[in-house]
Amino acid sequence: MPLRSAEEFLASLRDGRRVVYRGERVEDVTTHPHLGRGAHHVALDFRLAHARPGDDLLAVLAPDGEPMSRYFAIPHSSTDLLRRRDLIEHVTREARSFVPLIKEIGTDALFAMMIVAGRLDREAGTGYAKRIRAFYEHCRDRDLAMAVAQTDAKGDRARRPSEQAEPDAYVHRVRETRDGLIVRGVKAHTTNAVFANEILVVPTRAMSEADADYAVAFAVPADSPGLTMVASARGFGATSVFDNPLSSRYGLTESLTIFDDVLVPWERVFLCGEWRAAGPLARTFVEFHRFTAVSYKTPLLELLLGAAALIADYHGLLAAAHIREKLARLTLYLQTTRGLGTAAAVGARQVDGIAVPDVALTNAAKYYFAQGYHDAVRDVQDLAGGLVVTGPMEEDWDTPGVRRLFERALAGRQGIGAEPRLRVINLIRDLVASDLGGYLEVLAIHAEGSLETQKLTVLQDAEIERVKRLAAAAAGVEVASSKIERV
Amino acid sequence: MPLRSAEEFLASLRDGRRVVYRGERVEDVTTHPHLGRGAHHVALDFRLAHARPGDDLLAVLAPDGEPMSRYFAIPHSSTDLLRRRDLIEHVTREARSFVPLIKEIGTDALFAMMIVAGRLDREAGTGYAKRIRAFYEHCRDRDLAMAVAQTDAKGDRARRPSEQAEPDAYVHRVRETRDGLIVRGVKAHTTNAVFANEILVVPTRAMSEADADYAVAFAVPADSPGLTMVASARGFGATSVFDNPLSSRYGLTESLTIFDDVLVPWERVFLCGEWRAAGPLARTFVEFHRFTAVSYKTPLLELLLGAAALIADYHGLLAAAHIREKLARLTLYLQTTRGLGTAAAVGARQVDGIAVPDVALTNAAKYYFAQGYHDAVRDVQDLAGGLVVTGPMEEDWDTPGVRRLFERALAGRQGIGAEPRLRVINLIRDLVASDLGGYLEVLAIHAEGSLETQKLTVLQDAEIERVKRLAAAAAGVEVASSKIERV
Amino acid sequence: MPLRSAEEFLASLRDGRRVVYRGERVEDVTTHPHLGRGAHHVALDFRLAHARPGDDLLAVLAPDGEPMSRYFAIPHSSTDLLRRRDLIEHVTREARSFVPLIKEIGTDALFAMMIVAGRLDREAGTGYAKRIRAFYEHCRDRDLAMAVAQTDAKGDRARRPSEQAEPDAYVHRVRETRDGLIVRGVKAHTTNAVFANEILVVPTRAMSEADADYAVAFAVPADSPGLTMVASARGFGATSVFDNPLSSRYGLTESLTIFDDVLVPWERVFLCGEWRAAGPLARTFVEFHRFTAVSYKTPLLELLLGAAALIADYHGLLAAAHIREKLARLTLYLQTTRGLGTAAAVGARQVDGIAVPDVALTNAAKYYFAQGYHDAVRDVQDLAGGLVVTGPMEEDWDTPGVRRLFERALAGRQGIGAEPRLRVINLIRDLVASDLGGYLEVLAIHAEGSLETQKLTVLQDAEIERVKRLAAAAAGVEVASSKIERV
Amino acid sequence: MPLRSAEEFLASLRDGRRVVYRGERVEDVTTHPHLGRGAHHVALDFRLAHARPGDDLLAVLAPDGEPMSRYFAIPHSSTDLLRRRDLIEHVTREARSFVPLIKEIGTDALFAMMIVAGRLDREAGTGYAKRIRAFYEHCRDRDLAMAVAQTDAKGDRARRPSEQAEPDAYVHRVRETRDGLIVRGVKAHTTNAVFANEILVVPTRAMSEADADYAVAFAVPADSPGLTMVASARGFGATSVFDNPLSSRYGLTESLTIFDDVLVPWERVFLCGEWRAAGPLARTFVEFHRFTAVSYKTPLLELLLGAAALIADYHGLLAAAHIREKLARLTLYLQTTRGLGTAAAVGARQVDGIAVPDVALTNAAKYYFAQGYHDAVRDVQDLAGGLVVTGPMEEDWDTPGVRRLFERALAGRQGIGAEPRLRVINLIRDLVASDLGGYLEVLAIHAEGSLETQKLTVLQDAEIERVKRLAAAAAGVEVASSKIERV
Repeated sequence: MPLRSAEEFLASLRDGRRVVYRGERVEDVTTHPHLGRGAHHVALDFRLAHARPGDDLLAVLAPDGEPMSRYFAIPHSSTDLLRRRDLIEHVTREARSFVPLIKEIGTDALFAMMIVAGRLDREAGTGYAKRIRAFYEHCRDRDLAMAVAQTDAKGDRARRPSEQAEPDAYVHRVRETRDGLIVRGVKAHTTNAVFANEILVVPTRAMSEADADYAVAFAVPADSPGLTMVASARGFGATSVFDNPLSSRYGLTESLTIFDDVLVPWERVFLCGEWRAAGPLARTFVEFHRFTAVSYKTPLLELLLGAAALIADYHGLLAAAHIREKLARLTLYLQTTRGLGTAAAVGARQVDGIAVPDVALTNAAKYYFAQGYHDAVRDVQDLAGGLVVTGPMEEDWDTPGVRRLFERALAGRQGIGAEPRLRVINLIRDLVASDLGGYLEVLAIHAEGSLETQKLTVLQDAEIERVKRLAAAAAGVEVASSKIERV
Repeated sequence: MPLRSAEEFLASLRDGRRVVYRGERVEDVTTHPHLGRGAHHVALDFRLAHARPGDDLLAVLAPDGEPMSRYFAIPHSSTDLLRRRDLIEHVTREARSFVPLIKEIGTDALFAMMIVAGRLDREAGTGYAKRIRAFYEHCRDRDLAMAVAQTDAKGDRARRPSEQAEPDAYVHRVRETRDGLIVRGVKAHTTNAVFANEILVVPTRAMSEADADYAVAFAVPADSPGLTMVASARGFGATSVFDNPLSSRYGLTESLTIFDDVLVPWERVFLCGEWRAAGPLARTFVEFHRFTAVSYKTPLLELLLGAAALIADYHGLLAAAHIREKLARLTLYLQTTRGLGTAAAVGARQVDGIAVPDVALTNAAKYYFAQGYHDAVRDVQDLAGGLVVTGPMEEDWDTPGVRRLFERALAGRQGIGAEPRLRVINLIRDLVASDLGGYLEVLAIHAEGSLETQKLTVLQDAEIERVKRLAAAAAGVEVASSKIERV
Repeated sequence: MPLRSAEEFLASLRDGRRVVYRGERVEDVTTHPHLGRGAHHVALDFRLAHARPGDDLLAVLAPDGEPMSRYFAIPHSSTDLLRRRDLIEHVTREARSFVPLIKEIGTDALFAMMIVAGRLDREAGTGYAKRIRAFYEHCRDRDLAMAVAQTDAKGDRARRPSEQAEPDAYVHRVRETRDGLIVRGVKAHTTNAVFANEILVVPTRAMSEADADYAVAFAVPADSPGLTMVASARGFGATSVFDNPLSSRYGLTESLTIFDDVLVPWERVFLCGEWRAAGPLARTFVEFHRFTAVSYKTPLLELLLGAAALIADYHGLLAAAHIREKLARLTLYLQTTRGLGTAAAVGARQVDGIAVPDVALTNAAKYYFAQGYHDAVRDVQDLAGGLVVTGPMEEDWDTPGVRRLFERALAGRQGIGAEPRLRVINLIRDLVASDLGGYLEVLAIHAEGSLETQKLTVLQDAEIERVKRLAAAAAGVEVASSKIERV
Repeated sequence: MPLRSAEEFLASLRDGRRVVYRGERVEDVTTHPHLGRGAHHVALDFRLAHARPGDDLLAVLAPDGEPMSRYFAIPHSSTDLLRRRDLIEHVTREARSFVPLIKEIGTDALFAMMIVAGRLDREAGTGYAKRIRAFYEHCRDRDLAMAVAQTDAKGDRARRPSEQAEPDAYVHRVRETRDGLIVRGVKAHTTNAVFANEILVVPTRAMSEADADYAVAFAVPADSPGLTMVASARGFGATSVFDNPLSSRYGLTESLTIFDDVLVPWERVFLCGEWRAAGPLARTFVEFHRFTAVSYKTPLLELLLGAAALIADYHGLLAAAHIREKLARLTLYLQTTRGLGTAAAVGARQVDGIAVPDVALTNAAKYYFAQGYHDAVRDVQDLAGGLVVTGPMEEDWDTPGVRRLFERALAGRQGIGAEPRLRVINLIRDLVASDLGGYLEVLAIHAEGSLETQKLTVLQDAEIERVKRLAAAAAGVEVASSKIERV
């Protein structure tokens, strides 16, 4: 099947899915005043695939000779991973730094499930690999949009899934029937699920035997009976392009995704009680997804650096030492984040023919990005000046008598009038001092796992043992062989 | 005259002042749907003064035996400064961390003008000190609300006031008449000026002789002919107390303050062409005001720490090592900021009977606060979790069918239901991941002068010379006597 | 008895004490080629007390009307604590930043023992307070030098004292006799004990009931039978004043202090099995001592800043923006550390008539100092240039033919010859890039407790509960009442 | 010619070169008690080349079919650069983290000279490329050891070379003769020059026309008449392997290299007055050399991490949260530094057939390493404990009676006696709290250019313009076209 057009994609979302927004059922997510904005934003992903015919960055040939979206291309080498990174960067850059996330994350989950299923099948005689392969071809050949629901609602964070007072705090097996598996429970902040054709579900953490019912992975169409998505209204407050050049037009849509005795046909069940595999699946998915995250963060950092350089220029301060210092820091931040992504791809290892980005370097990249984001925000705010939060808004600007005042008072250096200056200042406010700015800060820290997780993931036994031996040799002692225990 | 009541204060704002909001003239700032919120917020300052009769924290006796607001008490000692700090902390804490700023900043300016005028009068034979004293008594005895307009619109930041293409980019002397001084120009982000009785104007920077016309300081009533205040609509977007417990009720109002040939009677003119005094006045005011700023920042830091501890508690994680680490960092941030404020007061020096907080320590305090704010935000966001930007909003919560879902899915540890958890999460979002959060970040950096200024202000010749001598003695060399040049 | 002279002090060290250095018994620590350097350095403390007769900074009147060293003055108020800080700063500054530590630390321990003993006597009917008072008067009236041995050898750090394979890893009670208590065990890094008249011993940590034998505190004369001090040779490598202007002349001497069945007369036993008081005594001593530490750190920071400013001056770079930035950072570091010390004194609370510095602020000060030290070192090294580790040494300099080369090649800006430049560079190397520099870095982190301890000590239940209430009120919820658990 | 043996290399150093050490002429650097240590250390480079016959990491085939050291292999691709990095890492790791630096830096300079000469020849019709090629083959075919002298003595840093009071502060052209160029002047901290066969000289900075005499590049044999090397005695103080396991055996030797009317034959002159090329040559060399530096830093970071993990293990603390946190930080530091090196190689561009590592990424790598070094030191010191600076030394340890004490008191966790613990602690002290530790800190900051230079080098016009366009498009404005000015 050829690549779908943006229109075909949008049409496919009108399928009777149960979406709730501000307490009301949404009939059509593509025409809804708020959610429709998101739907058309993510449709860009389909539009771009047709934008440059013959460009193999966006589409390649599937085994059947038909074009397929490059997202579905299974990476076999470092070069493939670098190309996948280029794809995600390109699309996100075109999308003004807002990653569509309707194919990136889904394929991350598919690749992870392939790897874990292969191992599980070999060890436990299960037959998941074939099912996943079939489901992957189903998505690929129909050019489907996919969301991934991983984070459970969780409840008491100091207790395991099976210990929760509220049994639905984690998605779980209710019972098995001839037709399939019945599941139930709540997943929190699932991104862009309301615009997906398929919802892929993976566990959020390692499980013990007592948690076996919670060790489930599967996929269901977005219009499955019993599936409700409560879309968050966060991020749809902005309406003026002058005031909020980004958040009035772009954004990611988060939802609480509720499974209320949803039937999953067996060929779509990819884990069902094999609790030992829950942790590896959660981790393998997250590793692929962190590499994706590092890839889609660079366009945001480019925008921050660009906006900072632009306003410094408008203020006539590009040559000032402390301005150059801040621009250099922002450049280092961008270069280092991107460079570590490159290194993660270059250091990939093959598992069953799939190239997996280097775990330590992917985490180093994600951690470096997340740890430094607030400092970058501070530098951009610092460069932009106080007007970022006190400047006039569109309604002021559109009043002739008032605008005249602003034009006199708020111009920049010679040749820069008040309007471009205010537009850049508003871009900066939208990026770093607004509801959107807050969302981006929280995303930097929490998306793809917390700072703590990323930091500790780099501690790998084998590497620690290797360097201990180097130190022991230098000290002239025998090396001990204790291990870093993983929690 | 006794202390005014909140009602008397509000009544005094209905004086025909020219306030523009979203392009329209506001008839009554106290009843306006948005600005009225601010008016009633700052009125708290008057309400508190009556709340605890006999409490000398809020009111003391004036020389005439009448009670006066303690803000007007001229500090003569470290103890007075510490007491002034306690006052500002108390009021700001009661005001949910939003300093009213209708007496704090005005008295900062009055104290600074007293000191600079005293020196100027002695050196140049001017007679400003008496005028300022009379104006101070006028404000004190009528219990007036005051705003300070300092930052000029500026235009090209690489050029001096007199070199600007737009002559009104800085407020300046137009001409002198028998009745007074005619002034013109634009001041940016003047806080709460629309709720003040008096607008005090001070220069924003040092001036050269060519800039003499820009070396002006004065005070005018808020309803002066030719004075227009364009209030910023930033910060009035929030309306739901559930969604935005703070920004739906509290906030500071910034305005662009425009002087269009305003006549200032001579007894209200405090600087007029004496360009050498412009820099000292700008700096002395800022020093007093940085001490005020450090004082009103601690309630915000208390709220950040409190909210972080509360959500950690709700999640059952108070004992986790990495949570304790973050709470400890937030506590250190609060304690260090406040401690440096204490040290600045203790290190005060007397100038003409007025206690001036230690410059290096005040700047160290303000810099430490400003430099660390984004790190604190990161820690709070980190502790709170991703739900901060993806959780349900009031309209979801108020729909019974949907609320039931949330109650099951979003409860915290045992004993903590979804509602209190969401309310605390919303408090956190409001503080650190919202339009308000962005405003607070920018304020941390830009209010009371930029990070660069604060950092470099601590470099003082005498101190550098002192420590160079210590080092020279330790090295066994003669000390050289070069100076750090001040830019 | 009047204040002792430096000579009387030195004479008192020739008492037959058992000191081992580089494997050999030292007959006289005052004339030993290495240790003698230390002995004469600490004697400065006595010399200074006589240097400015009538100056009450160094000596005050004891109750008996005789002069006593101010170190012994029990602080009753914030003012007393500030004065004690001034004393420690003054002496350390005179001592080129090397605190003598033969009265500061001893009085810290005495004050802590007075407080803990008072409480213990009231609660448990013991009679320690009187003994401590008598011992305090003994030290004060004889103007004695005191060392404090706290840190035990420890062994396996994951086990409690009573669980150690090696019973002497912690100092402990062996048995009680009519004459006194017999003690045994090893204390690590006791500073300047080899130059003390009295060795005070306090526990290093909280104890459980099983550890009761390890809950001991006492004092013994330095020449007690069974007491051996193995002095560390670290820090005595430097001999050229040109190459190492500081470490060739000054330094602290650390020792391993070994108690081999030492008899402690009962009137010198201050804790003996009351295990519940071990933790409070350890902590109270450390709190006093951290305040001392903050006081003696500022002269070191003055020296770092002074040396950095001096070399920047010699290189003609005082006006360069990035140099000013670094000098400003070093100044902020000094001012903030000192300011927090001031605030800790100002926030003191009275316990049984003794002013105890504010715990949170003392720890904030110590933590801020320790956390920032390596950054300051980096800035100083950065300012000084690579010559710090590649420059010529005294033997090169003293060779006429070679010196001529250096004089031509290594001069600074106009007017600064190679010699003063090299001397300042050598001062910097000695401070921040040498054995001494390494010692100072480790001291910053480990002396007076680790960074972790300091950070977590600021977390105080009452304060956390207070700010949680503020946040709960702002969020509109009831506050929960969980506690931060102390480990 | 085949690869030289270590013995052949050492023999070649006995050539009458003029080396001064501690004011005395050194007859034979290979047998000198101090310098001999360095000579035998760097000889390792030759030994390793023979250690694994057939291993193409160390030696490859030259065009003439003879084996040549891989250092001389001109990199044509990213893969070649990664392989060169692997070589430098391997040798440095074998050398206990002390890079030999007798071929790495020389080939860095040769590659840079090839590139700059090629451009210069094309632009100015000079004929340097052929000379450099011939000299390169001379070094390669004879397997020579090379040092590079770049940093001039400098004098007043605010003045250009031609403005110095002391004309020899920068190496310069004295006059030209038929036989060659006569040069004069002083180069500071030239590493391992006393062990080189050839001394390569490149300019240290950009030159103006007035500085044309200072725009010189050339190579001379180490035994050239008029050439004197004053070797620094820094770093030769340590003699006990127990106390200083590294610095008693390994080290880099810095020298002041003095040219006193040295005649350089014309075929060895590579720049002579073409002042415009001085800056490009200085920068191109430094870029190659920063890539080398990043490569030789990772073994040091491995050693730091390994020593930290080892001592944490010995203390039984590998599972403690705050220990894991520090080990994770050290791992991130290592991984990020190395990863950025990888990315710099992957991003290489070809210039005249030579692969040049990506400038921004090389600088990001070097900056990240240098900026974080002191934090890593702090973490290692923190993990190791205070004993690092107070523990016993070899002379104590070798005294039976004393050793018995230490064995009881200083053992680690079960199974770890005092001796291995002390050896690891001594390794740590040697690395991070000693003369060597100070040298390594200063090296991190100053070698290969200062932090300031590295930071600002990443600011590249084209990239800034590119991201400004992205921001302008997002803001809806036309982009301005100002440039970041390079200083």
